[in-house]
Amino acid sequence: MAKATAQPVKGTRDFLPLDVRRRNHVTGVIREVFEAHGFEPLETPAIERLDTLMGKYGDEGDQLLFKILRRGQPLVEGVREASAFIADESNLVEGRSGTTAPGAEPLLGDLGLRYDLTVPLARVVAGHQGKLPAVFKRYQIQPVWRADTPGKGRFREFYQCDMDVVGADSLVVEAEVTGAAAEAMRRLGFTDFAIRLNHRALLRALIEAAGIDASLETSAIVAIDKLDKVGRDGVARELEARGVSPGSRDKLLLLLGQDDDGDGTPTLQQIKQNLAEHPAGRAAIDELEQVMTLAVDTPAAAHLRFDVTLARGLGYYTGCIFEVQVADLAGSLGGGGRYDGLIGMFSGRDVPACGITLGLERILVVMAERGMYPDSLVPVDVVVAAASGEQLGGAMRLAGALRREGLRVDLRPRARKPGKLRQQADSDGLPAAVWLERDQPAGANLWLRKPEGGGDTIRDLEADAILQRLKTHLEKS
Amino acid sequence: MAKATAQPVKGTRDFLPLDVRRRNHVTGVIREVFEAHGFEPLETPAIERLDTLMGKYGDEGDQLLFKILRRGQPLVEGVREASAFIADESNLVEGRSGTTAPGAEPLLGDLGLRYDLTVPLARVVAGHQGKLPAVFKRYQIQPVWRADTPGKGRFREFYQCDMDVVGADSLVVEAEVTGAAAEAMRRLGFTDFAIRLNHRALLRALIEAAGIDASLETSAIVAIDKLDKVGRDGVARELEARGVSPGSRDKLLLLLGQDDDGDGTPTLQQIKQNLAEHPAGRAAIDELEQVMTLAVDTPAAAHLRFDVTLARGLGYYTGCIFEVQVADLAGSLGGGGRYDGLIGMFSGRDVPACGITLGLERILVVMAERGMYPDSLVPVDVVVAAASGEQLGGAMRLAGALRREGLRVDLRPRARKPGKLRQQADSDGLPAAVWLERDQPAGANLWLRKPEGGGDTIRDLEADAILQRLKTHLEKS
Repeated sequence: MAKATAQPVKGTRDFLPLDVRRRNHVTGVIREVFEAHGFEPLETPAIERLDTLMGKYGDEGDQLLFKILRRGQPLVEGVREASAFIADESNLVEGRSGTTAPGAEPLLGDLGLRYDLTVPLARVVAGHQGKLPAVFKRYQIQPVWRADTPGKGRFREFYQCDMDVVGADSLVVEAEVTGAAAEAMRRLGFTDFAIRLNHRALLRALIEAAGIDASLETSAIVAIDKLDKVGRDGVARELEARGVSPGSRDKLLLLLGQDDDGDGTPTLQQIKQNLAEHPAGRAAIDELEQVMTLAVDTPAAAHLRFDVTLARGLGYYTGCIFEVQVADLAGSLGGGGRYDGLIGMFSGRDVPACGITLGLERILVVMAERGMYPDSLVPVDVVVAAASGEQLGGAMRLAGALRREGLRVDLRPRARKPGKLRQQADSDGLPAAVWLERDQPAGANLWLRKPEGGGDTIRDLEADAILQRLKTHLEKS
Repeated sequence: MAKATAQPVKGTRDFLPLDVRRRNHVTGVIREVFEAHGFEPLETPAIERLDTLMGKYGDEGDQLLFKILRRGQPLVEGVREASAFIADESNLVEGRSGTTAPGAEPLLGDLGLRYDLTVPLARVVAGHQGKLPAVFKRYQIQPVWRADTPGKGRFREFYQCDMDVVGADSLVVEAEVTGAAAEAMRRLGFTDFAIRLNHRALLRALIEAAGIDASLETSAIVAIDKLDKVGRDGVARELEARGVSPGSRDKLLLLLGQDDDGDGTPTLQQIKQNLAEHPAGRAAIDELEQVMTLAVDTPAAAHLRFDVTLARGLGYYTGCIFEVQVADLAGSLGGGGRYDGLIGMFSGRDVPACGITLGLERILVVMAERGMYPDSLVPVDVVVAAASGEQLGGAMRLAGALRREGLRVDLRPRARKPGKLRQQADSDGLPAAVWLERDQPAGANLWLRKPEGGGDTIRDLEADAILQRLKTHLEKS
């Protein structure tokens, strides 16, 4: 069979052992920190009903859902219905990739793959009422799927790490989730990150103060969100293109500190003066100040930075918003905020919620580029081998004895030349290797890695001596 | 929206926090044991190409694949092709659930969901040659999907835990994988399990010795596999129905120790005498004896039990086969064997392989029924709360101080009455609770669970005193 078919599907990845160890290291740290903050794990199925998913992520999101085929008899009906649907030319849409018929898809299947972790959370909150605490602090680390065109750093299957508090409107939540995110970043080895902080109601107040009509509010927020990417002039053009008058446009840019000869992004104090007469804006500022006061003793304190230009693209935020950033990566390593209208969508009641998501794939990219993975991710403590087939039984007994003492032992099931064994152990970064040779009835040979590279061999040791020397060696290294 | 739509898709499950903690406990133990045996983690995408999956699991398997719809323009073409396909009545199949057209599915999509972990392993071995060691010891713990009719204990999404050695034909592998499986079972708390052991070549030799034609070999193995379910008479009927003559049938049952007045399943010594003149049978017996000798020092030694009636249903086994069983569950908690023909399917070369899979869902069922989950799966060390909103900031500072000392702290973001807090902590099985009340400027109150149930409250403690008492309490409990 051709080799090409042995590659994973485009946009998906095989994670070989070193990849998995690195990914598990990062998710392990995140999990530990989230749990230390009292967040509890939730896992939901990869497969959701299409009507649970559709209409939650906008038109583009609906297009990016992976849809699953019905089986058997309903499929025959579905094909007939879809065929009739497609025969009606008014259902066809001309697009970049040719003629499409989006409405035909639900006729062929009623299931889809999980697109994010927020909609499943909302479904769980509605579906398990009474079984969950009134204030539900949950985290969820699972893959999601998007039928996107695969590209550099854009995958069809990737992980999200979400933590959210559902059912509490206290600002303590904002301080807790940013604190937990900061602690996870710190434990992963990041020191130089910033957590930008803003408030949707503050942005809305500024948009109103600039004289922009409420109907253009969302457009204005989307435009501001692009500041990092397109710069001040780009935002100005975008605002105008979306129908904001030149006067309002300039006033908004001035309020955001993006005027031609501005002194840069304004402080919260400066904004406060500008919004002295705006009650909703003052209330938002008051919330931001409370969050920063509450956060003083959290790991986020040194990293939180008010930034009035932070907008976040998604429509559903209602209060504080935040984004985790490092200097050497465009875009963010995570973000979130308060979204009080979303979680109640399946239960038909308002449920306050606030959370943050860490972007696992991006964090991994930055850690790889900076060489931030710990050396201690070696798979085992020692590799044990036999120089010839006759010693395999002896090697196995020795491996068993070492494992009973708690060591992680890779027993090689095929005979291996001692030189090759040491060489491989060396290049794999293993702390030690042990091998049995012919004519060594009582003993085996031990190779111990030296801190400066290479290693020392001690010959003819009995099992007890090997164990003792290994333990001492592992404690030191 | 109706509550029903908030339930997960039939055959899939939401795992609430306690479920996840229990599942993570079990997979964590399995992972640790597999890694202590030098097996390395592999993860593959949920989505595979349909042509990677189709034809690997038999006709029934092909039917149970979840297939994913093409998007956009190809879908329009696909619907037209599928419609033409269905219009041809010779492509329609009358089945239990009505008219089906299995061949239409690939016209509508070319992707499917992972059905097991073995085919992806075979694909990875072919696709990453040179990047993997010549002897690849891998484990993989991931969900798989089957479009089966959901039922009691039968899920559409469930986990498999596989460990396999690819590239080595040494019997050390059989001893290692059964040893690792036994150690995982032992650490989970199982003491009374058996690992039944047999050899496919031995079964084939017995079938031949019974005078059954080689063309009926697979049928005979499938019939023997049903012994647990349908009993001796059922197997006899099945053998006859599949074309085995009464004479051969009786001889086979005699060789398997299933004759009318037999003394039960024969020992390996008895089989050896019966197959004295059969070289292939003797070779298989020799391998079984070697495996048992090699296993003497492994955790499997006390559990391995030769059982000539073990057949395992799957066609691909070529050598030793094994199955993990406990008395109180029909069916097995895991199983595997040597399958030297399967892994090379994508690379077009023969690759020896042997492995075992542990059935996570069944292990969880037995552990739940027997109450085998450890108590230590409590989510946090202490819950911290404020009796009224004004103390929330103080509670947050205290939570931060305790977390900096390494404690896992659940800070409740809403004010909570002390009585309710203690009650909840008690019913959740938490070791301790702390709360701040009005008019306690310097201190807080600490509730410590008593081993016999209930707890003691100590009032007005400063942060340092709370930390010290908590630490002492956690060490004791």
